[in-house]
Amino acid sequence: MASAAVEYARRNHARFLDEMKALLRIPSISTLPEHQGDCRKAAQRLADALKRVGMENARLIETEGHPLVYADWLHAAGKPTVLVYGHYDVQPPDPLDEWLSPPFEPTERDGNIYARGAADDKGQVCAQLCALESLLAADGRLPLNVRVLLEGEEEVGGEGIAGYVASKPGELKSDFALICDTEMFAPGLPTLCVGLRGMIYTEIDVRGARTDLHSGMYGGAAPNPFVALAQIIARLKDEDGRILIRHFYDDVVAPSPEELAAWSSLPFNEEEYRKAEVGSRELVGEPGYSVLERTWARPSLDVHGMPGGFTGAGAKTVIPARAQAKVSMRLVPNMTPAKAFAQFKSYVQEVAPAGVDVEVRLIHSGDTCLTPVDNPYIQAATRALGEVWGKETVFIRSGGSIPIVGDFARHLGAPSVMMGFGLPDDQIHAPNEKFSLQNFKLGIESLIRFLEEAAR
Amino acid sequence: MASAAVEYARRNHARFLDEMKALLRIPSISTLPEHQGDCRKAAQRLADALKRVGMENARLIETEGHPLVYADWLHAAGKPTVLVYGHYDVQPPDPLDEWLSPPFEPTERDGNIYARGAADDKGQVCAQLCALESLLAADGRLPLNVRVLLEGEEEVGGEGIAGYVASKPGELKSDFALICDTEMFAPGLPTLCVGLRGMIYTEIDVRGARTDLHSGMYGGAAPNPFVALAQIIARLKDEDGRILIRHFYDDVVAPSPEELAAWSSLPFNEEEYRKAEVGSRELVGEPGYSVLERTWARPSLDVHGMPGGFTGAGAKTVIPARAQAKVSMRLVPNMTPAKAFAQFKSYVQEVAPAGVDVEVRLIHSGDTCLTPVDNPYIQAATRALGEVWGKETVFIRSGGSIPIVGDFARHLGAPSVMMGFGLPDDQIHAPNEKFSLQNFKLGIESLIRFLEEAAR
Repeated sequence: MASAAVEYARRNHARFLDEMKALLRIPSISTLPEHQGDCRKAAQRLADALKRVGMENARLIETEGHPLVYADWLHAAGKPTVLVYGHYDVQPPDPLDEWLSPPFEPTERDGNIYARGAADDKGQVCAQLCALESLLAADGRLPLNVRVLLEGEEEVGGEGIAGYVASKPGELKSDFALICDTEMFAPGLPTLCVGLRGMIYTEIDVRGARTDLHSGMYGGAAPNPFVALAQIIARLKDEDGRILIRHFYDDVVAPSPEELAAWSSLPFNEEEYRKAEVGSRELVGEPGYSVLERTWARPSLDVHGMPGGFTGAGAKTVIPARAQAKVSMRLVPNMTPAKAFAQFKSYVQEVAPAGVDVEVRLIHSGDTCLTPVDNPYIQAATRALGEVWGKETVFIRSGGSIPIVGDFARHLGAPSVMMGFGLPDDQIHAPNEKFSLQNFKLGIESLIRFLEEAAR
Repeated sequence: MASAAVEYARRNHARFLDEMKALLRIPSISTLPEHQGDCRKAAQRLADALKRVGMENARLIETEGHPLVYADWLHAAGKPTVLVYGHYDVQPPDPLDEWLSPPFEPTERDGNIYARGAADDKGQVCAQLCALESLLAADGRLPLNVRVLLEGEEEVGGEGIAGYVASKPGELKSDFALICDTEMFAPGLPTLCVGLRGMIYTEIDVRGARTDLHSGMYGGAAPNPFVALAQIIARLKDEDGRILIRHFYDDVVAPSPEELAAWSSLPFNEEEYRKAEVGSRELVGEPGYSVLERTWARPSLDVHGMPGGFTGAGAKTVIPARAQAKVSMRLVPNMTPAKAFAQFKSYVQEVAPAGVDVEVRLIHSGDTCLTPVDNPYIQAATRALGEVWGKETVFIRSGGSIPIVGDFARHLGAPSVMMGFGLPDDQIHAPNEKFSLQNFKLGIESLIRFLEEAAR
């Protein structure tokens, strides 16, 4: 029989959905300065909601960037304390013309809700909030001590929360963290994420001539920053996708044979994944590794954009004075961002062609993470998910990076339970992002049951 | 003693300058659709001016794009006919923040006039117009038959004029063309350009995944279009700047030993050029060739921009579904655009990495050109320039492309006299484009004397 809190959640589902939609309508795009006010609006809405459902000390915590949202309820003497984390900021919605419904007008279609931030991460933050409301409303109390800490800079490096966690660990004292920002391995398959890749996000800035030059007059004598960048990038990875930065793989720890065996029994078909999720002619990457190994347990390198020069329609025969590449690398245990960036920077300088000045900048970074599956909170989460979804929980890793997981470990000594309800085809960071309505509903129930189990 | 027309030009110089400024104020940027009206405005202003100075049949000729400007004066029986060519369109002014004075507010500083289009090509078109006015006003007639044909699409491929010249050669019947769209080799050094590089301007379009993907989730498995483009571009040129497209150099004709000897006696210092004009750490290009050979007599390849992905400030961890490179190649005698594009396209497809779809498009092209120095009109120009500038005329080539020169040769059988008054540091196509006021003045006088000499 479902707990009283789960019954409450079921009765209030329609209202919960409306509240998620209201949050999704706020275009809290953290990377764009013109949306600074929207970020604050989303933060304030969440602080108000936390207060309304019965959480205490609900407030905004100012940072150099977008504010944090904090609230707590600390009346469960002798019980553990959980730090509930999520983020209210979203990625830019461009390219806009590929959205079937407007990114900030949440729209229900085919059992999903479509909006920027639906799965990443506002829908999941709402599920956390609804679980807390259900427990407080049904039981008049929470089964354990709860701190909520939400940030608005996850998509831009999370400097604010990182600084706060590092400087005020006493105010966040917790036994473990609950992070809802990952995905289930497949629809209906309860999933705990126990490993994350780390990352470094960089910019390579290349300068050639003093000013833009005419490619007729100077072509053949003046350095071309885009050609230089192409030469650099082509030397970063070989044809097979193996990264060529010296000693880059030295600290990589391979997954255990047991972990690899468990991955190979997951419901995953590479050809199906290529067709349904990626949609490219072929998949790429290091030969000899499965897709799951390549995206979970091997480092990767991607180029995100190359600003500079002429990008309009038609032709401009310019040799630009300057061009840039935005390049990021995903890291795996036991690589560290500091060492990886130093290796990258020195290698880029080494392979840069003659005639240009090259500057390499670190924009942000995040640590890798790996939690043992026998951790008691992972075990509690396993029981809760198994009950709500009626299936055995699978343990996966994610290729993504959640830098805050490393900060919670380092500064609070708190391991993270990453219980996510996104799905692989949710199109996060892309047009037509969605969140499954069923996952929203069962996600709330899973969170309620997890908090109840974690208190035992 | 100066001719009556030259005396007239000297008396009217201040007004001539005002007329040039009025033309420079019109932002006739041919590549930007929002400036379509400005292009027409510039064309109409020139047609009106031609009529005012006494040219006949002055009118706009409509094309699919921006209009041509035509006028003639055909009353010099028994004398040759010259086709006077220039263009009234200009390049976009970006990056705007690097201009010291607004690009469309012509400003005099240090003996120059600064504005987009000052040297390329409105200032030179005005010099042509002022020469015609001076001859007609001082002598009541022109010494030879003159047709004027100005275009507004030189910076975007010149399709309109190419189509018109090809379809109506009878209406443009001329013995030679006078093109003022090149530069003098050095200040005060009278120069005739007798060779031009041709060009092909292309776009390489690369598609990987069906939609934009998250680089954490998919990095290591999904193809990255920018990495693919970098690999393609890195294979187009080697470290030394030698183009690697198969058979690309097969048709290249080396300059004669006499031409090379003349070039080596020009006042040109590669280190000075690097510092004063290019301003880069080093010059680049094929070893074993001088800078003049590399930019005048060797093909080159440049990348102008790489649209796609995330180019804003900060970080977006996207693997873009699509990215593009704008790539052009300069061609030399006896290469042809059609063959060069076929070689380029097939090579790009051949070296494209796995996992992506690659499309290669030709945006526009122009033929190479080389005129013998013993041509009688080149000889007349040599005499006129020597007299006005008091120095022996030098014969150079230009690395740039003026596709219309090939069209005049092919359809009208008319060789071109390329008598330009720009200077190497005029910053055409870049911020702070300028035109020397002295060159404007002596340019008008040179044109008057040339038309007088060509009539003999």
